[in-house]
Amino acid sequence: MTDHEGRGASDRPVYAVEPWCVREPELRLDRLAQGESVFALSNGHLGLRGNLDEGEPHGLPGSYLNSFFEQRPLPYAEAGYGYPESGQTVINVTNGKLIRLLVDDEPFDVRYGRLHEHERVLDLRAGTLTRRVEWTSPAGCRVRISSVRLVSLTQRAVAAIRYEVEPVDRPLRVVAQSELVANESLPDLGDDPRVAAALESPLVGEEHVHNGTKVILVHRTRRSGLRMAAGMSHEIDGPGRTAVDAESSPDVGRMTVATELEPGQRLRIVKYLAYGWSSQRSRPALHDQVVAALAAARHTGWEGLLEQQREYLDDFWRGADVEVDGDAEVQQAVRFGLFHILQAGARAERRMIPAKGLTGPGYDGHTFWDTETFVLPVLTYTHPDSAADALAWRHMTLPMARERAHQLGLAGAAFPWRTIRGQECSGYWPAGTAAFHINADIADAVVRYVDATRDERFECEVGLPLLVETARLWRDLGHHDVEGVFRIDGVTGPDEYSAVVDNNVYTNLMARRNLQEAAAMAMRHPDLAERLGVSTEEAASWRNAAAAMLVPYDQRLRVHPQSEGFTNHSKWDFAATKPDHYPLLLNYPYFDLYRKQVIKQADLVLAMHLCGEAFTPDQKRRNFDYYEGLTVRDSSLSAQTQAVMAAEVGQLDLAHDYLGETALMDLHDLARNTRDGLHIASMAGAWSGLVAGFGGMRAADGCLAFAPRLPGGISRLAFRLRYRHNRIRVTVRAENAVYELMEGPGIKIRHHGDEFTLGDEPAERPIPALTALPRPAQPPGREPVPRRTDPHLRETEGPPGADSLSSPG
Amino acid sequence: MTDHEGRGASDRPVYAVEPWCVREPELRLDRLAQGESVFALSNGHLGLRGNLDEGEPHGLPGSYLNSFFEQRPLPYAEAGYGYPESGQTVINVTNGKLIRLLVDDEPFDVRYGRLHEHERVLDLRAGTLTRRVEWTSPAGCRVRISSVRLVSLTQRAVAAIRYEVEPVDRPLRVVAQSELVANESLPDLGDDPRVAAALESPLVGEEHVHNGTKVILVHRTRRSGLRMAAGMSHEIDGPGRTAVDAESSPDVGRMTVATELEPGQRLRIVKYLAYGWSSQRSRPALHDQVVAALAAARHTGWEGLLEQQREYLDDFWRGADVEVDGDAEVQQAVRFGLFHILQAGARAERRMIPAKGLTGPGYDGHTFWDTETFVLPVLTYTHPDSAADALAWRHMTLPMARERAHQLGLAGAAFPWRTIRGQECSGYWPAGTAAFHINADIADAVVRYVDATRDERFECEVGLPLLVETARLWRDLGHHDVEGVFRIDGVTGPDEYSAVVDNNVYTNLMARRNLQEAAAMAMRHPDLAERLGVSTEEAASWRNAAAAMLVPYDQRLRVHPQSEGFTNHSKWDFAATKPDHYPLLLNYPYFDLYRKQVIKQADLVLAMHLCGEAFTPDQKRRNFDYYEGLTVRDSSLSAQTQAVMAAEVGQLDLAHDYLGETALMDLHDLARNTRDGLHIASMAGAWSGLVAGFGGMRAADGCLAFAPRLPGGISRLAFRLRYRHNRIRVTVRAENAVYELMEGPGIKIRHHGDEFTLGDEPAERPIPALTALPRPAQPPGREPVPRRTDPHLRETEGPPGADSLSSPG
Repeated sequence: MTDHEGRGASDRPVYAVEPWCVREPELRLDRLAQGESVFALSNGHLGLRGNLDEGEPHGLPGSYLNSFFEQRPLPYAEAGYGYPESGQTVINVTNGKLIRLLVDDEPFDVRYGRLHEHERVLDLRAGTLTRRVEWTSPAGCRVRISSVRLVSLTQRAVAAIRYEVEPVDRPLRVVAQSELVANESLPDLGDDPRVAAALESPLVGEEHVHNGTKVILVHRTRRSGLRMAAGMSHEIDGPGRTAVDAESSPDVGRMTVATELEPGQRLRIVKYLAYGWSSQRSRPALHDQVVAALAAARHTGWEGLLEQQREYLDDFWRGADVEVDGDAEVQQAVRFGLFHILQAGARAERRMIPAKGLTGPGYDGHTFWDTETFVLPVLTYTHPDSAADALAWRHMTLPMARERAHQLGLAGAAFPWRTIRGQECSGYWPAGTAAFHINADIADAVVRYVDATRDERFECEVGLPLLVETARLWRDLGHHDVEGVFRIDGVTGPDEYSAVVDNNVYTNLMARRNLQEAAAMAMRHPDLAERLGVSTEEAASWRNAAAAMLVPYDQRLRVHPQSEGFTNHSKWDFAATKPDHYPLLLNYPYFDLYRKQVIKQADLVLAMHLCGEAFTPDQKRRNFDYYEGLTVRDSSLSAQTQAVMAAEVGQLDLAHDYLGETALMDLHDLARNTRDGLHIASMAGAWSGLVAGFGGMRAADGCLAFAPRLPGGISRLAFRLRYRHNRIRVTVRAENAVYELMEGPGIKIRHHGDEFTLGDEPAERPIPALTALPRPAQPPGREPVPRRTDPHLRETEGPPGADSLSSPG
Repeated sequence: MTDHEGRGASDRPVYAVEPWCVREPELRLDRLAQGESVFALSNGHLGLRGNLDEGEPHGLPGSYLNSFFEQRPLPYAEAGYGYPESGQTVINVTNGKLIRLLVDDEPFDVRYGRLHEHERVLDLRAGTLTRRVEWTSPAGCRVRISSVRLVSLTQRAVAAIRYEVEPVDRPLRVVAQSELVANESLPDLGDDPRVAAALESPLVGEEHVHNGTKVILVHRTRRSGLRMAAGMSHEIDGPGRTAVDAESSPDVGRMTVATELEPGQRLRIVKYLAYGWSSQRSRPALHDQVVAALAAARHTGWEGLLEQQREYLDDFWRGADVEVDGDAEVQQAVRFGLFHILQAGARAERRMIPAKGLTGPGYDGHTFWDTETFVLPVLTYTHPDSAADALAWRHMTLPMARERAHQLGLAGAAFPWRTIRGQECSGYWPAGTAAFHINADIADAVVRYVDATRDERFECEVGLPLLVETARLWRDLGHHDVEGVFRIDGVTGPDEYSAVVDNNVYTNLMARRNLQEAAAMAMRHPDLAERLGVSTEEAASWRNAAAAMLVPYDQRLRVHPQSEGFTNHSKWDFAATKPDHYPLLLNYPYFDLYRKQVIKQADLVLAMHLCGEAFTPDQKRRNFDYYEGLTVRDSSLSAQTQAVMAAEVGQLDLAHDYLGETALMDLHDLARNTRDGLHIASMAGAWSGLVAGFGGMRAADGCLAFAPRLPGGISRLAFRLRYRHNRIRVTVRAENAVYELMEGPGIKIRHHGDEFTLGDEPAERPIPALTALPRPAQPPGREPVPRRTDPHLRETEGPPGADSLSSPG
């Protein structure tokens, strides 16, 4: 959703705008939960929300292990065949972040005493969250506290915290308590269906041991049958005598350090954390695994972990960085986004990438089509191994998807609309099971990854089975009508304000690609295909269905209807819809949304991005204008696609506005739900808006195509990509684009339609002139906020949207 | 649904076939629950299932008060705006039927000892359920027991039982316990969504008193805030000394009679029962109301109640009886059906008529569109006051329907898909809220009733407000497209194997009538209309929308698609569907049913019955044939409409087959769920199949039209109707029809298109010849069982359906 109030000009910014950091110069108690998501650290396996070290105050305490979930029943007022009966919800695991502090008998709590300074910095190159505090207790004791936290990208099970405290002006007695706490009580999250179902005390203690500064807690879930272990170990460095004590109970492990400090003296604690979970391994095995991970971390040491972290990130940025001159907010946001995408996917390793990464419990911790459609493209061209891992997870779940298809009476595999482990968890089939496009989205991600990497082993082991089973689904889901046209009836496309429609253009085009590519890949690997049971007849039937695929077109309006009949529907009465009635789904019944022309999120416009070859340039312009007038962006997924297509049809300033919206979704908390976790797909949106939008980047068949063009507000855009063992850098300015091969054998490039091979010599190409077109209108009140690059300007201008119609593209 | 196994030839019939009775010659423990529904007695206010007097064994104990319900939460896996949060479920109220018997210390229980004779008879003219038993106890004591039970049609609060016991061959000690029992434990009904949600101990005791042979129990529900009272009083007639004792506790009232009987002596107990409930009245008021009802019943006395009952029924049959020569089963079934329809509606008095009447807890005791569409037509032409009452109840709930429309963002009133008190209780909106046709069905029932009765006061007080508010709904629900065509998108028609479709023909035609009739009625009552806020502009907008209403037609196939695009869909793979996979909704997901050509119940075919003027005879034939091939009759509502339209298009034997199915739905337990209550709409189906089918009866604008024609298996059909203060009788034979005015000023009649006025002289008219047409095919295995009128023939023939294709119409 979008929420104009969330980004009002009068709101003082929470974070400083810097190119490589997200700095919070002061603590804002009213933005605590947002900050916990923004400052979350993760490596895709373990995620720690940016909770304060001392645990309180908090918005929402959160520590997550990828795919560690609890089951809950899915109830229905009226049951139906094939409805999933069991849901999966990510749970808050044992919290190892806690370090509480007593200063002369008074607990350090930012809500009491006096806070002189409180700064937190997320460093996108170091991969650390740093905190600096200066505080005077109610009794007048002044201390400096600093902490540095990391979740290791190189040691998957490990996180670490360096915590320091020193008196400012007089000697102090200091007690630090470093803890592991399971079953933390969580605040009530209200009844917004998009927020995770609260699960109280989901963990059952199995073991608790302490030894020296080391504590291990082992728990299991009540219903899902998963087991986890968390451990901590410490290095303590203080002057003079420090008393150290450890204790444990089923849900609490505690290491206590007491000491006295003079001004100039400092207590330093390095806390190593390790986590592990399994659905199969025994309690002792899991216990030992965590102890081993702690030993490895201590062996590497704090400085070693920091170094490894930076090296890992340096390598990432070498192939992924995006530079933006002229729009500092977007510059920061695109790097912030890339960082969090990396965090979500880096070490997920054959587990899913959730819609919120491991930054919060939103959407129950489920993964959706967003991952394949919006996140994996970024990873494919910047950190391809993570894209391969995510698709390998889908491949691992193929048996469940086959079973689901069978239950639904279909051939092939039907992947779940939302899930953690692989089973369908959607409790509303018109916007869940019926959204079969997820299968084509997965296939498309496979095709994209294989095109970008030529990863033959992946193609054979993961890619082909996924394409074959999804193609089988489409072949069975559709049918030829009496005139031989292939139709796909009764499905739901990306736009969730329509459902259960016939011949959704996006779905049909993506299914067509799925069928074509499956046939092509099967032809490339005839032996493997045969082992998968693919006969030449079957492959031919895929090709034939693809060739006969219906793509509805409204001759009267000369636009593509989103689905058959869509343009006959009544248009939503936008003029009568009050601003506080968005998002519409919370204020209008589905029946009314479904039967009218109103669009939650880009659907036909997404089809024009991903299947651009199916539309003429004129159709793209007309379609784009038509759907601009209907799209309310009640989904955070929409703006990035509108940015990409606005750029393609020459609406560059409009594209820049949409780019701003997707890029700043979480840093500005535009949807007002960043508290529940970051919108990982919006993180990807900043990259897409810049690279696929202003860079015009499309890739297929071994060729990287670009059609770069910058809006007025951006003077230079440079981005790096990885493609077929090449790393290239593209630099775009108003008048030209420069292509440089940084590494690799060379690459076929297309620039505004002209193809050439990029070798060691940089290539400079001019940007063709653009004829300005009138800017299309959005539904009243749903215009994107105009992008201004000078933050001072933004703070003094009028209400959002007022100027947006007067700035031509 | 239909179930061929339920009527297999090898199954010996449970009930004897007699014209005016339903006789169960022996007790079938395996059919106990079915019998409880078949033998249920009701007056529309109070309903008593046909449980055995002694309470056990039972299928399902049941005593119901119309609209006495408990609330229960409606849960959703994913919530949505406008979903109803609270459901309503009919509850089993205090059981007053119980009379337990001890014979020489041994309880009378048909499962023990030896049952020499057990006969039960439902007498359709007397309105009583009679039972005769001869039983020898395990200890060898032989007794004769008989009981007669009635639920009074003349004293709404009252039921009564005459219970007699006598020894056969030696003196006996006999103890009879007559009871009132609240919160009976109910058997688990399984998880079939169509069965009532079990509600345990829904009643909270408020008062229990006993006095002489009289006991009163007062209870209230836990959540819905309703209060009820039940009372019993007795007349005891026995030889010599009888010891009588009464007692009461919160959930039990008991009157005990002990005596000794010689052979030839008899203990007779007359038990008077009275019930009352209210959402507003106090405990003492309700208590007193029941005491008064008991006093009135005793004043009338047992014989008096019997007499009143027979008089009431004699009057009913005079205006309603249907005679069928040649098919004894259908003869019995149509009277059985009329009897139960009368029982459901006679004294409902501004309460709803539930889908199961007061015969069982099926469908949670809710009312649906069936009442207006299938049941009220019968009542309109046979017992019009009950039709008026049922519509007056709808009128009473207008405020709730207006509120619901408002919640849905619509003008006018949106009546609930299923309810007890008036609030929407449907927990699945695609087959609930979206089925807006219920509003047109109510309007159509109003128009039909007003046409049939010229009840001016009803028209002004009930009819006009209902038509106006439903017309407003349609005007707002539809819209004119760019070409000026009025479209109704995103709704669900009668067929529940499609949902959320555009321009369902049935819905559009019924909405058209609703709009036209509302405008016409407003014109007849300009002052009243003005008071309802109807301007001439508004009425004109209804007329215009009606005139521009889209009725989709498939030029290619030359049939009407059930809804726009329907005929483009893939046809269901009937050949691959196993017989035990019906009903399909329990074995296939909605998504698959919705997107294919497969029909649960007549939809377009129903439109052809109710809106016949919108189709040419040729279209009717072609449409009928087309939809025969798609309709699986997984709804018990379907067969009667197929019977009516089969007759209209000249498929007389096929019509007879469908008539058999609807007529015998409960007597033969065809859907295997008669245990949960009778299918009141199927009860109406026997009448419709005969009168509207073979009689070809249609009524509109003061004219009764007929197009009579009999199938080979029926030699004579005679039926009586009430229309505009006339009572007429129509007698149809193969060669001619005779119309007789039995009472009233005379009436305009149309016979096969020829209009004449029927006065005191009977009119005989010939039946035109019919050209035989090939019989259309049904989905394999879904053919109706061929109707054979000789029961011996039926018992020896092969599997059902095998011959049905070889008997041309």
